[in-house]
Amino acid sequence: MKHQDIPLKSTNQAAIKSEINWPHQKKSCLFLSFDFDAETAWFDERAADSKQLVRMSHGGYGARVGVPKVLELLNHLNLSATFFIPGWVVETYTALCEDILNAGHEIGHHGYYHLKPSITEGQPKSIDSLEQSIEEIDRGFEALERCLGVKPIGYRAPCGENYDLILDYLSQKGIKYSSSWRDDILPYRHVLDSSLDSGNKGLLELPANSAFDDWNHGVMKGSSRNMLTREQVLSIWQDELEQTHAWGGLTTTVFHPQVAGRPSRFMILEQFLKHAQTIEDLWIANGESIFRHLEEQGL
Amino acid sequence: MKHQDIPLKSTNQAAIKSEINWPHQKKSCLFLSFDFDAETAWFDERAADSKQLVRMSHGGYGARVGVPKVLELLNHLNLSATFFIPGWVVETYTALCEDILNAGHEIGHHGYYHLKPSITEGQPKSIDSLEQSIEEIDRGFEALERCLGVKPIGYRAPCGENYDLILDYLSQKGIKYSSSWRDDILPYRHVLDSSLDSGNKGLLELPANSAFDDWNHGVMKGSSRNMLTREQVLSIWQDELEQTHAWGGLTTTVFHPQVAGRPSRFMILEQFLKHAQTIEDLWIANGESIFRHLEEQGL
Amino acid sequence: MKHQDIPLKSTNQAAIKSEINWPHQKKSCLFLSFDFDAETAWFDERAADSKQLVRMSHGGYGARVGVPKVLELLNHLNLSATFFIPGWVVETYTALCEDILNAGHEIGHHGYYHLKPSITEGQPKSIDSLEQSIEEIDRGFEALERCLGVKPIGYRAPCGENYDLILDYLSQKGIKYSSSWRDDILPYRHVLDSSLDSGNKGLLELPANSAFDDWNHGVMKGSSRNMLTREQVLSIWQDELEQTHAWGGLTTTVFHPQVAGRPSRFMILEQFLKHAQTIEDLWIANGESIFRHLEEQGL
Amino acid sequence: MKHQDIPLKSTNQAAIKSEINWPHQKKSCLFLSFDFDAETAWFDERAADSKQLVRMSHGGYGARVGVPKVLELLNHLNLSATFFIPGWVVETYTALCEDILNAGHEIGHHGYYHLKPSITEGQPKSIDSLEQSIEEIDRGFEALERCLGVKPIGYRAPCGENYDLILDYLSQKGIKYSSSWRDDILPYRHVLDSSLDSGNKGLLELPANSAFDDWNHGVMKGSSRNMLTREQVLSIWQDELEQTHAWGGLTTTVFHPQVAGRPSRFMILEQFLKHAQTIEDLWIANGESIFRHLEEQGL
Repeated sequence: MKHQDIPLKSTNQAAIKSEINWPHQKKSCLFLSFDFDAETAWFDERAADSKQLVRMSHGGYGARVGVPKVLELLNHLNLSATFFIPGWVVETYTALCEDILNAGHEIGHHGYYHLKPSITEGQPKSIDSLEQSIEEIDRGFEALERCLGVKPIGYRAPCGENYDLILDYLSQKGIKYSSSWRDDILPYRHVLDSSLDSGNKGLLELPANSAFDDWNHGVMKGSSRNMLTREQVLSIWQDELEQTHAWGGLTTTVFHPQVAGRPSRFMILEQFLKHAQTIEDLWIANGESIFRHLEEQGL
Repeated sequence: MKHQDIPLKSTNQAAIKSEINWPHQKKSCLFLSFDFDAETAWFDERAADSKQLVRMSHGGYGARVGVPKVLELLNHLNLSATFFIPGWVVETYTALCEDILNAGHEIGHHGYYHLKPSITEGQPKSIDSLEQSIEEIDRGFEALERCLGVKPIGYRAPCGENYDLILDYLSQKGIKYSSSWRDDILPYRHVLDSSLDSGNKGLLELPANSAFDDWNHGVMKGSSRNMLTREQVLSIWQDELEQTHAWGGLTTTVFHPQVAGRPSRFMILEQFLKHAQTIEDLWIANGESIFRHLEEQGL
Repeated sequence: MKHQDIPLKSTNQAAIKSEINWPHQKKSCLFLSFDFDAETAWFDERAADSKQLVRMSHGGYGARVGVPKVLELLNHLNLSATFFIPGWVVETYTALCEDILNAGHEIGHHGYYHLKPSITEGQPKSIDSLEQSIEEIDRGFEALERCLGVKPIGYRAPCGENYDLILDYLSQKGIKYSSSWRDDILPYRHVLDSSLDSGNKGLLELPANSAFDDWNHGVMKGSSRNMLTREQVLSIWQDELEQTHAWGGLTTTVFHPQVAGRPSRFMILEQFLKHAQTIEDLWIANGESIFRHLEEQGL
Repeated sequence: MKHQDIPLKSTNQAAIKSEINWPHQKKSCLFLSFDFDAETAWFDERAADSKQLVRMSHGGYGARVGVPKVLELLNHLNLSATFFIPGWVVETYTALCEDILNAGHEIGHHGYYHLKPSITEGQPKSIDSLEQSIEEIDRGFEALERCLGVKPIGYRAPCGENYDLILDYLSQKGIKYSSSWRDDILPYRHVLDSSLDSGNKGLLELPANSAFDDWNHGVMKGSSRNMLTREQVLSIWQDELEQTHAWGGLTTTVFHPQVAGRPSRFMILEQFLKHAQTIEDLWIANGESIFRHLEEQGL
């Protein structure tokens, strides 16, 4: 594909909302969500990495320590969150996923092996890539239903990428909302590429905020970045929340139990959530509740 | 090219000014400028990236949220800035660019697809590269004029690179000032390579300061760096401004709406601009005003 | 290996402990350990690097300055630590290693050339890699015994990686505990891959904490990261310690004399250790003492 | 070269000093030195980069602004420093180098094109590499003598690398001290590889401290790191200085005018030097003065 082939239109055709009426006279909304990736975050594209036991142990922390600690905290603070979980994790840590479900949290779709989706240029010339991406999605659905009886309505793109054809497929399979895009402070409804002609309604997008991806501030293995201090992370998160609140927007977290459940990061999570709860007109909710509200509003 | 072929002269032959007389008895000058790149910042050299919708959404934020928020702030603070905008963005977000123009801001040339210019070694042996660079410039001019009726006099090099042959071409086409070099705290007039013999006058340079490129402190996607806190960015920016002011120099910002318009970054921008406005003998201006003043001064 | 070959089980089959009874009514434990790598940290995979004298000098600092300064501090604070040392370092700096031993510290196994272990996929098809990994281990044992009369019971994986086959071999050769995994805040006993059928008991794991790897916060040569200030490192370390203490867990340091012995880093180390000593119910110990206690507890 | 060929000896055979008697009852010493690289820092291995004018402008700042500002400050504080300058810079910016010399500063050897030296494995099998390294050194000497009448006695390795064969050659050509190694807090005398049998006395080493390389904390172009704030850099530098002072050691700076002369970095430099001058028993000196003193002491 050459530059001349880039169409002259915004890559996101969704209508821009000027404001959202949040429920209960709330001024803005905090969508509390976690990606429980466990080892899958570490074998991504290199399946052979799964033999490297210490490498894998960085992800395993999420299951051995992270999720139990996070569940305890959420229970203590009486908060309900969404956990996006790859199918492999659901099959491997089924009991833990049941704990998440039984504690009243929503479980969303997050692929199967946490593979980055891929697709050919507009028209599927190489069916292999699209096929593998579709297989990831199918196996994710299958694992969630068989192990947990869950038919997810929310989807977060593994490795943070997505395509029109995949959005369309997700819509066909019952997904109602996505939480992967980074281009807005308000929710919107995706407009699918008209050339697809599938007749599906676009998904609702609950856009995420990279500043709330705890991985970026606290993981050193495989990263070029420094670990930030608690003071630094809280400064960033409180600023993001305060300004988004002033704008009446949506703040979406992308927390990971394998990060947020580490000792010093846990202190940050706890302090941030307690801080958020002091903001009276902030609605803290999981994805399903937000989706239901927005649908009622006709978005 | 071998090291032996590197000429024994400074790569910048422009005369060094010892001081500038700023207008209205001001001691130094703040050139307020933004690069409104939108998606083009993300497809650079890999056109196929434009199919990756989440990747693109990082840039799309600039159009959906960033520019409107920045315009509101500038209006509130009664400030006029320069927006350097690639042709593709002008064609794709024409209405938004009209808003920029109608709010009294200057629009500068910033390429078409935001491609890094390239050129062969001194003499154009491989005409392809130079030709593509020239085409980028021509299409940028054409889009600005057709969509907005703008004939730009300012140019900022996309991806921060430039060459003698391109400076010469820009001068032929009506560009009066450049704002891309990083080698001075005072403006200067470019001296073109004498071998070009084109008879054009060198452009005026309003050199930029990398510390004021907000991308460096606040973008994590595709970057190896951490996000800095508001306190950290303000510390750096206020120090840069204070020392440049003490030297009577020019402080040039390289802000991006897709960064500066993010919630926590917006707070930084607002606080920095309000701080700058408290410095009584600081002249805050856009590029055209600075150029006009310097030209009157005979630079 | 393809993703389909990744087994559906946690890569760590060790039972999760809910709590540990630390000795003397202590609430949590700080395992104080250093990796004395000297030059080996810098020739890793590229033996030819050993000719680059300035590159090597970064590691040499550990021997010329780091270890003597650290030993002085530990003596002053009356603390006993574990030093994991590659065989090459033991042979090259034998007198210094004797000083470590004579000062009452434990010496653990850390490979020979500090090479990252490698192994083929499950079954050793390419015997070369496994053989070299085994040779590293054998030569490490041999150097420790010949030069220092030490038969180590602790092992830390050089370059932070390990495999089932190597854990099994270490167990056969007398190693009792490992301190390399990053997946828990409590010690546990490794469960070896049942397909190995070697009859060996799994090693006890004293999992480490990457936040306490001083390399990550203070080395710039060959690293993409910034050096953190004393205030930043102490903030992170005190938070990690405080939360792990609240959880009754194990805090394991991965300090390096070539880092911790640098002037500003030495101040951090000294302040951190003095801070730790003010926590009355914190047990600060070396690996052997912790292993003996846990074995008595039947872990 | 394979790991088995790595000799079993420290890569630095120099005797370790336990203390140094600094002159005038001073407790420790600050070796104030700058690397004035200008554009050479940016064309290193890729000569063709010299055509990229904006890239080059990052280095050009050192000549247009950095050196004049630094000289003014040193004059104001009455301090004499050492400037290590590549031959290309001496030939290109001769008048500026004369200013440095006339202000009472020492000029040291820093290569010609600022190329990283290279050499074959122990014995020069591929003469090309060693020859080019020697040519770099010869041309550096020639430029310093012809343009400035300087016969340098100090050498700092360009791109921070050096080899036994090159140390030996430098000694033959009149160099008396090196300031490139990072393995000590006290000066020492190099012991040349005995296999060289050249009869030359090893150079005196004034080891440098990477924490005082301002490039690491303040350059973003071509770097993966963040810019640190003034507060952060001063925290690191004051800690390094305070602890080295407590140890009676040598603190060697590796400042660069193209960094230290940037507005916010200049404030850091000024504050650091003023702070250092408040420490009464700290000797601040250039390399030649330190060398003369140590030679008198018989080192």
